[in-house]
Amino acid sequence: MNLNIQINEHYFNLKKNYLFSEIAKRVSAYSAEHPDAKIVRLGIGDVTLPLAPVVVEAMKAAAEEMGNAATFRGYAPDFGYDFLLTAISNYYAQSGIALSTDEIFVSDGAKSDVGNIVDILGDNEILIPDPVYPVYLDSNVMSGHTVSFLKGTRENGFLPSPENLPLKPFVIYLCSPNNPTGAVYDRDGLKAWVDYANRSGSLIIFDSAYEAFIAGDYPHSIYEVEGARTCAVEICSFSKMAGFTGTRCAWTVFPKELMVGDTALASLWGRRQATKFNGVPYVVQRAAEAALSEEGQKQCRDNIAYYMENARILADLLTKKGVSFTGGTDSPYLWLTCPNGMKSWEFFDFLLNEAQLVGTPGAGFGEAGEGYFRLTSFGSRESTIEAVRRLEKVL
Amino acid sequence: MNLNIQINEHYFNLKKNYLFSEIAKRVSAYSAEHPDAKIVRLGIGDVTLPLAPVVVEAMKAAAEEMGNAATFRGYAPDFGYDFLLTAISNYYAQSGIALSTDEIFVSDGAKSDVGNIVDILGDNEILIPDPVYPVYLDSNVMSGHTVSFLKGTRENGFLPSPENLPLKPFVIYLCSPNNPTGAVYDRDGLKAWVDYANRSGSLIIFDSAYEAFIAGDYPHSIYEVEGARTCAVEICSFSKMAGFTGTRCAWTVFPKELMVGDTALASLWGRRQATKFNGVPYVVQRAAEAALSEEGQKQCRDNIAYYMENARILADLLTKKGVSFTGGTDSPYLWLTCPNGMKSWEFFDFLLNEAQLVGTPGAGFGEAGEGYFRLTSFGSRESTIEAVRRLEKVL
Repeated sequence: MNLNIQINEHYFNLKKNYLFSEIAKRVSAYSAEHPDAKIVRLGIGDVTLPLAPVVVEAMKAAAEEMGNAATFRGYAPDFGYDFLLTAISNYYAQSGIALSTDEIFVSDGAKSDVGNIVDILGDNEILIPDPVYPVYLDSNVMSGHTVSFLKGTRENGFLPSPENLPLKPFVIYLCSPNNPTGAVYDRDGLKAWVDYANRSGSLIIFDSAYEAFIAGDYPHSIYEVEGARTCAVEICSFSKMAGFTGTRCAWTVFPKELMVGDTALASLWGRRQATKFNGVPYVVQRAAEAALSEEGQKQCRDNIAYYMENARILADLLTKKGVSFTGGTDSPYLWLTCPNGMKSWEFFDFLLNEAQLVGTPGAGFGEAGEGYFRLTSFGSRESTIEAVRRLEKVL
Repeated sequence: MNLNIQINEHYFNLKKNYLFSEIAKRVSAYSAEHPDAKIVRLGIGDVTLPLAPVVVEAMKAAAEEMGNAATFRGYAPDFGYDFLLTAISNYYAQSGIALSTDEIFVSDGAKSDVGNIVDILGDNEILIPDPVYPVYLDSNVMSGHTVSFLKGTRENGFLPSPENLPLKPFVIYLCSPNNPTGAVYDRDGLKAWVDYANRSGSLIIFDSAYEAFIAGDYPHSIYEVEGARTCAVEICSFSKMAGFTGTRCAWTVFPKELMVGDTALASLWGRRQATKFNGVPYVVQRAAEAALSEEGQKQCRDNIAYYMENARILADLLTKKGVSFTGGTDSPYLWLTCPNGMKSWEFFDFLLNEAQLVGTPGAGFGEAGEGYFRLTSFGSRESTIEAVRRLEKVL
C-alpha cells in the first residue's frame, strides 16, 4: 500500500520552477535544428574564473592537515572556526563596522541560510521584492506564509521604498545589489527601510551576496546604516566574492540587539544550526579564511575587475543602442528593457534565433520582471565580446 | 523598540541541551581542583584518526582543478555529482541492493538530512527510540509534532519492536547500529518493522550512519529487507565510515516506490533541497568518491578495525568485571549498566573522581538511558589501554 502519512501540503502551492529547464529546452531544440550554430551563453549566474591561487593553496594545506594524525580535525564548531569568524569580523571592520565573532554564523551557503531562516520565524506577513532571487518566495510558500510583493519598476529604479506601507511588523527581504536587476540602494534608500523597520517592529533580512561588486559610494552592508542592528539580519557569501559557488561558504549576522521579547534571535538561529547543521568542512573554512587575507582579497578583486570589465563592455553596447538598463556598474548583472515592447520570452527567442545568444528572461524572477531581460558578466572576455558583436547587429 | 514579529514558539519546548556542556563544566571544575590529573576522555562520538591517504590525495587534486580555468567547477548539481551518486550506488550493489542514482541525494551531513526531512512532512505522530541520537526528537519538537517513545531496555536488548503498536500511520525513526546503545537489529527485527510500516502506511526513517562498523551477520541497509522500498527512507554518512566528521558528506535514499497519494516523497525532498541547499563542495565530493574506491575502502576499513580493536579491549574488561553491556562488536559504542545501581551522572562523577576518566551519561540520550553509560572506541589505542588500566582498579 501507499504511505498513509501527512506531507507538507504547502509544497503544492509552489510554482513549478521551470526557468532554467525551459531555457535548456529551447536552447537544445534550437541546437538540434541548427547543429552548426555557435551559441553564446550569458544566462546563468555562476562564476567561471578559477579559485584564487592562495585559496587553492590553503585548501591543499588543510587537506594535508586532515591526513595527519597530529593535525586532523573532527567535528568543526557548529557556527564556524574562530579563525574564520575573526577574518569575517575583520572584513567588516574595514568598512568601519564592529561585529563580535559570536554575532556571525558560518554556513554552507547563502541559499541555505535564506531558506532555513524561515524555520525560526513564526507566521508573519512577508514582504518580498519583485523581481528578485526566487528562494525568498519559495521558502515562505513552503511554510504557508502570506507573501506580498514590493514591486520594482523603471519608475522607482527597481528600488522599492517603504513609503506607502502600513505601520505593522513584517518580515522584509531586501537584496542589494539586487539579483536580477543590479539596482543598489544608496544610504538614504536603506536608511528609509531601517527607520521603517524600527518604527514598525519589522525584521529585515538583508541579502548582500553581491556586495563585493559595488564600486560606487553605496553601503556594502546594512550595518553601515544607523539603527540596523536593532532590525536587520545580514546574509553574505563567498560564492560571488571569491568564486565559491562550487566550494560553499557563507555567513549570517545576528546582532545581539535583535530581540523578540526576551528572546535573542541569535539564540534561536544558534539552536537551529546546532540541531540541524554540523558545520562547514575544515578545508573550506581555511579556503574562505585565505580569500579574506590581504593577498586573497587582491586576487579576488582582480577576478571581480575582470567580470566588471565584461559588464562595461555590455553596458557600452546597450547605451550605444539606446536600450534602457540598470546594473552593470555595481553588480555583475545587466537588467534591460526588452526592445520594441517585446515580452521576456519573446526577446529570449529573438536573441536565440537572430544572434544565437542566451540570456535569462526577466519574467522568471517575478511578475514585475515581465518585459525585462538579464545578461550576466560572468562569461569569458571572448564570449562577452562575441555577444556584443552579435547584439550590435540585431538590436 | 524590540522586533514585533512572530517567532517559532515551538523552540521554547526544546529541553536545554546541556549534556556536553555539563560534562565540560564538571571536567574543568575537577581539573581546576586537581591541576596535575591526567584525564582520559572516552566521551565524545567523534573520530580521531586522520583521513585516508587516497581521500587526501583526491581532495588536493580537486583543489588543483578548482584553481585551473579549464577544470574549474561552479555550482554543483543540487543532489550530487554523477560520479559520486554512481559510487554510492555501487557501494549498495556490493550488498546486493539495486538503487538508481536518482534515488540518492547527496548532502553535507546525516544531521542536516535528519533535521531537514521534517520540512517535507506534515503533522504526523512520531515514534522515536529512547535512548537515541537527540536530533530526531529536537527536530520534531521544533515543528510542534507529537512524539512518543519506543523504549529500549535491557529486556528487549535496546531493540524495541512494533508488536504492541496500534495499526496506524506513524513516522518512525530507527537507528541501527544504535547510537548510543550499540544494539543492532538483525534481519527478523528489521523485517518486523518493515512489515508493520507497510501494513500501517507508516514511514520509517532509517539512520544507518554506523553501518560500516557491523562485523556480524546484520543488515547494513534497511533495503536488504524485503518490502523496505515501499516504506523506508535511509540516511547514511561518510562521517564515521571514512572519518568525515570535519569534512561533511552524507546521503539519503528515497526509493521511487515511496508515494503519498500521487506524490513521490523524492520529489518533495528534491524540491526542498533545490530550494534550500546548494550542493556539496566539489572537493568534498571527490574526497567521498575516493573513500568509496577499492583502495579507499581498504584504508577506511583499516581505521575501523583500529577502533574496533579499542572496543574489544574495553569489552574484555567489562566482561571480566561482570559489567553488563551492549555494543562494542558491531558498533563503536559500548553501553553499560552503571554498577551498584548508580545513576548515570553519579557514575560519571565516580569515574571522573576515582579514575580521571570521562564518558557520557546515558541519561543524556533520553529518559530510558538513566542508569546507563556510554564509552566510545574512538580514542587512541594508548588512551584506551590507559582507560582499561584505570577501570580495572575502580570497577
